[in-house]
Amino acid sequence: MNIRFVLNILGRVLIILGLFMCTNFIWVGVYEEATFWGHFYACIITLLGGAGLFLGTSINLKPSLGLRESYLTVTFAWVVISAFSTLPYLFTQSIATFEDAFFESVSGLTTTGASILNDIEALPRSVLYWRSMTHWIGGMGIIVLVVAILPMLRVGGYNLFKSEATGISYEKLTPRTASTAKRLWGIYLGLTFLQVVFLMFGNMDFFESLCHSFGTIATGGFSTQNDSIAGYSPYIQYVITVFMLLAGVNFTLHYFLIKGKFKKLRRNDELRTYLGIILVAGVVITVILVRHLNLGVEEAFRKAFFQVVSIITSTGFITDDYLLWPTRGWFVIFLLFFVGASVGSTGGGIKVIRLVVAFKSFYVNFLRLLHPNSVIVLRVNGEVVDDEKVSTILGFIVLYFVTAFVGTVVMIFMNVDAITAMASVISSMGAIGPAFGEVGPTSNFAMIPDGGKFFLSFLMILGRLELTTVFVLFTLDFWKD
Amino acid sequence: MNIRFVLNILGRVLIILGLFMCTNFIWVGVYEEATFWGHFYACIITLLGGAGLFLGTSINLKPSLGLRESYLTVTFAWVVISAFSTLPYLFTQSIATFEDAFFESVSGLTTTGASILNDIEALPRSVLYWRSMTHWIGGMGIIVLVVAILPMLRVGGYNLFKSEATGISYEKLTPRTASTAKRLWGIYLGLTFLQVVFLMFGNMDFFESLCHSFGTIATGGFSTQNDSIAGYSPYIQYVITVFMLLAGVNFTLHYFLIKGKFKKLRRNDELRTYLGIILVAGVVITVILVRHLNLGVEEAFRKAFFQVVSIITSTGFITDDYLLWPTRGWFVIFLLFFVGASVGSTGGGIKVIRLVVAFKSFYVNFLRLLHPNSVIVLRVNGEVVDDEKVSTILGFIVLYFVTAFVGTVVMIFMNVDAITAMASVISSMGAIGPAFGEVGPTSNFAMIPDGGKFFLSFLMILGRLELTTVFVLFTLDFWKD
Repeated sequence: MNIRFVLNILGRVLIILGLFMCTNFIWVGVYEEATFWGHFYACIITLLGGAGLFLGTSINLKPSLGLRESYLTVTFAWVVISAFSTLPYLFTQSIATFEDAFFESVSGLTTTGASILNDIEALPRSVLYWRSMTHWIGGMGIIVLVVAILPMLRVGGYNLFKSEATGISYEKLTPRTASTAKRLWGIYLGLTFLQVVFLMFGNMDFFESLCHSFGTIATGGFSTQNDSIAGYSPYIQYVITVFMLLAGVNFTLHYFLIKGKFKKLRRNDELRTYLGIILVAGVVITVILVRHLNLGVEEAFRKAFFQVVSIITSTGFITDDYLLWPTRGWFVIFLLFFVGASVGSTGGGIKVIRLVVAFKSFYVNFLRLLHPNSVIVLRVNGEVVDDEKVSTILGFIVLYFVTAFVGTVVMIFMNVDAITAMASVISSMGAIGPAFGEVGPTSNFAMIPDGGKFFLSFLMILGRLELTTVFVLFTLDFWKD
Repeated sequence: MNIRFVLNILGRVLIILGLFMCTNFIWVGVYEEATFWGHFYACIITLLGGAGLFLGTSINLKPSLGLRESYLTVTFAWVVISAFSTLPYLFTQSIATFEDAFFESVSGLTTTGASILNDIEALPRSVLYWRSMTHWIGGMGIIVLVVAILPMLRVGGYNLFKSEATGISYEKLTPRTASTAKRLWGIYLGLTFLQVVFLMFGNMDFFESLCHSFGTIATGGFSTQNDSIAGYSPYIQYVITVFMLLAGVNFTLHYFLIKGKFKKLRRNDELRTYLGIILVAGVVITVILVRHLNLGVEEAFRKAFFQVVSIITSTGFITDDYLLWPTRGWFVIFLLFFVGASVGSTGGGIKVIRLVVAFKSFYVNFLRLLHPNSVIVLRVNGEVVDDEKVSTILGFIVLYFVTAFVGTVVMIFMNVDAITAMASVISSMGAIGPAFGEVGPTSNFAMIPDGGKFFLSFLMILGRLELTTVFVLFTLDFWKD
């Protein structure tokens, strides 16, 4: 285990985090806030900490990084940047305690969007900006960014990249990992920019447009308003729906779209299924809202599709309290908690492709029962997926449920009621944000006991890094030499 | 598709069912009931129906049975025997409507033990006997019995046997399926007899001892009392706990025990895990009951272990209303709803062995991440399980959850509240009986709408036949020639 290397990468990550933090000063200036020194200390500590680690370890550095170092680096980095991201909250006295600030940071970076704040609008704008910025940093992944802009990590870069990126396997857009990472960040930046323009077109000011775009493209869900997106115009709500939907699509498909490779899009099983689920769930809920709540068709359509897209992409923006819908309505939303967005997107959860593989494997099993002597294979996007891969994917789904059950037990032992325990765990693992019970869409996580906040923070990181990257650290083999 | 063959087997099954029905007359005589003609019509119709099918189709019979015929026969047979089993309820006017009687029959045969009866004790004893008898017929499997006593089904017998028996794969105790089936029924009979003796030793009369032994060894859960086992002495409760535990063990292990092959028992991963889960869950709940409900240690121990064993084995007998326990207590019980008993036992649910494979596969996946170039295999009971089998087993678990989710949606659309919907679906699929919400341990299924009763009956048969035997009938390939 090359601990020096791990610390060196951590140093780089912290420096970049510190640079992001410096952009907070823009809003201190624009809104003439009294928060200057708070942000100043936060930046300085982060940058100095990063520089110290980077300079203190760079001597023996060789450009090779083993598998174990990558898993350790990525998990460790997420904990460390979460800790440093609390500094702007703490030094500006926006959040009083470390446990609350840590929860808010992890929730931001993992793009969960669950909050402990009772009054969001009371925060200084520079801090609200930082809150949304954490989404944006975590959405595409800060380590992907490090790989993109510090290309010297040639060999090990791909391992790092894989450990942080969401998904079963990233298609390499180019042979070089650094260029792939750059292209992905390029698309990310482009989508964010586009959304800002569309939002400003709807008379949202630049500050709010930027914050909401960060929250959308990263599928985060932090808003600058206490009632999330409910108070904005239908136009704004539609724009956010469309961009959430785009953010939930595999970013390599955006790349192929730009390059004009439409064939790759057409034969993508995940994209078809993702859009299909949204369509069906949206239409079902629209009908339910029209029939049972007597809403107009446009309003029902808007609320239904907004909420469906917001939950399936794990964003967590809210325009309506779905807990007030009829049971059959919110239960559809509940099911989407277990679906998740596409692989290679910024969204969380189990991910559509895994469910596609699961359903195909059911059918393959039935066929194998009927034709025990034939060779029957499973294909995704026209390509064969072997049994080892299928068992890994199904194993992930089962592990996801097992973790959710065990997590619920832990929360119950912290004296949280069963529904809230289960809801908060599923919401945290899937990076969704709002949930059910006492942590519903119009509520927040302030009432969760401190131990529970740390535990949910752990689950958010666990979910963001897709379980295995973190769990592998808990195996005996990991620490054997 | 050889429909003649399917109908011929059905005929045999009905004849045997009719013969079982004839034993009801014993209790008509003993208790001098006025139910004679009701039972008479039920028997005659079942026997004549069976004889008609058997004689009308036996001409072209060849002793070979394809895979597809077996799946169809088994599923079809379960529906048909459930329909005929309603006759004693209907003709004695113990249950008024067909939908209620059908639910009770399916619940009995699948060893679920969920009831629509508000006052069990009001039923004639001959009908209570029949109710418990349905457990006993379904527990080991009526088709297994047909295979055992009509050995002419040589080749096809094993397929039939596999389709009905619970479990991943039955170890053949002897090369001939018929002898294996005979031995299993022998153990079944022996255990039942032993329990009757033990219960009568505790001053339970023969009638109640027999009924409760049927309900225990079949892991069914129908009692002759309204308050299930709660009113009986601690001795009786302990006897039932032990026999439920035994009924949840793979019956081939009982066979090895009798034959003195202790090595086979020691190296059995499932047995170890099954006992381990019961021990841990039982101790945890004992501590909770002592600490939070101020029960004495013996009482807490007895209630905890009774409920844990009753739920994990999918029996569903009750000595205490676990919904009144603290959240952390009943949540442990809730988790056991997803565990199930051992493969090759009479118990239902996902089954311990599948969870063992799942947990081992998690670890295998972690090791494969760390050592991508090594060959890492999964072993159960010391033998290698290949990736195809692992993916089938994991696929079963995922399919189980998916079916539970979809089933819940169906129940919600029948205007059942969400908790009751989910609880009734999980309880039915796992053949457990009591559940949560409005179908808790001290309640029953009478309030479920008629459509819901049929749907839950379908889920019980689906769960009893381990999903695939039924689902395979819904594939296009099944009906292609």
